[in-house]
Amino acid sequence: MENITSLKNPKIISWRSLRERKGRESLDAFLVEGPKMVQEALSSSFTVRALLLREDTPLPFPVPDSVPIYGLPSHVFASVSDTVTPQGIAAVLSRTPRPIDGKHLVCLDGVQDPGNVGTIIRTADAAGLDGVILSASCADLFSPKVVRATMGSIFRMGFDVSASLHDDLRTMRENGFSIISSQLDGDPFYARPSVGSSFVLVIGNEAHGVSPEIRQEATHRLALPMRGGAESLNAAVAAGIMMYDLMRD
Amino acid sequence: MENITSLKNPKIISWRSLRERKGRESLDAFLVEGPKMVQEALSSSFTVRALLLREDTPLPFPVPDSVPIYGLPSHVFASVSDTVTPQGIAAVLSRTPRPIDGKHLVCLDGVQDPGNVGTIIRTADAAGLDGVILSASCADLFSPKVVRATMGSIFRMGFDVSASLHDDLRTMRENGFSIISSQLDGDPFYARPSVGSSFVLVIGNEAHGVSPEIRQEATHRLALPMRGGAESLNAAVAAGIMMYDLMRD
Repeated sequence: MENITSLKNPKIISWRSLRERKGRESLDAFLVEGPKMVQEALSSSFTVRALLLREDTPLPFPVPDSVPIYGLPSHVFASVSDTVTPQGIAAVLSRTPRPIDGKHLVCLDGVQDPGNVGTIIRTADAAGLDGVILSASCADLFSPKVVRATMGSIFRMGFDVSASLHDDLRTMRENGFSIISSQLDGDPFYARPSVGSSFVLVIGNEAHGVSPEIRQEATHRLALPMRGGAESLNAAVAAGIMMYDLMRD
Repeated sequence: MENITSLKNPKIISWRSLRERKGRESLDAFLVEGPKMVQEALSSSFTVRALLLREDTPLPFPVPDSVPIYGLPSHVFASVSDTVTPQGIAAVLSRTPRPIDGKHLVCLDGVQDPGNVGTIIRTADAAGLDGVILSASCADLFSPKVVRATMGSIFRMGFDVSASLHDDLRTMRENGFSIISSQLDGDPFYARPSVGSSFVLVIGNEAHGVSPEIRQEATHRLALPMRGGAESLNAAVAAGIMMYDLMRD
């Protein structure tokens, strides 16, 4: 274990930059915090570049020799952490999620709220979907808030961040996928025609919904019933209701 | 319209206290913000005690003569508001929600996160449930974050804040309600026995779930399938999936 005591150490400065999207992109890395997340990271397909340990925190599990461990005093650890009460252990990982392999997918088209993005990933995992496609306009998959909200599902799901969502969905449609657009003016969700064995459920931006060009590409445009006076559902809740029901088909 | 220009005006001090639970309880009132929420409040069963208008904001809709209107300079309005970018209109309401009347209910047993409480209320409204029972240990129904997250559904649903949830649920059970406890070790949700025509779905605390004495009272103990490696769902997502599916029965 190497000890780093200075806030101005270049490694500390670079790890601190991971709190911002720019820093994560420049280093092609992100940070996860807490014993549970770090342990899951170690047994995932992600490359663990470094393990950070606050000086008062014993190593809670064995770590492969290939992973360098750095000991930090409390104030230095806190300067890297994104949380108000840091848990004393963190890991720096390469941004290399598992690619998508499977036939049941959810796609986020401009979902902005990090909590929503992370919660949808967590729910997709629980519902048994295979992967998550994110448009480039979504909240960053590797932001601390998204990573936290996934509750570890970021290590288990396949991902694709799409630079051209419209083209990618068109290709998937040509390859036999149903493209399901979730939209408030859609047809009744529970009376939907069969979506077949391969589908991608598209969840849109919190304010504007699925973008017009993606709606055009859809094979199914569906809405959940709105019974009381409510005009819409939270994006993560709507995604959860639809994913769980689609996986029953 | 009466103008108030001092931060030390007793009315301003009392309205400012509504940001805290203690202030809301002592005044038996709460604050809603933004034109949409205020307009919905005016046509709801809640009593509107005062309407607050920032001096640069025109009144966006007619207001009954019985509602006193107060004009506030920007810094005074901001001192009362709970939001970072106040929308220039707010209303002080009495804490008198509509009582519960109906046979399809959701019950929150110690749900702590204000976003979860508000989102569950919004989803219950959209799913067509009739009312929401909150244990005294839940986040305060009238806190600014809960009210915002309901997106207006606080004006449309019936509510009961229960001082003795266990007794109340037992009485409901004796009156023919199914008591459905959502718990991770429950029986498969989608293979459930009929819940009949009257039910209350109980959603537990984010960390500890439904409390043991409530589980004992339940007629149904049910769990959603957890397919991937995920251990649990967000409380508001789980509630949404279950409420929408129960309303199909």
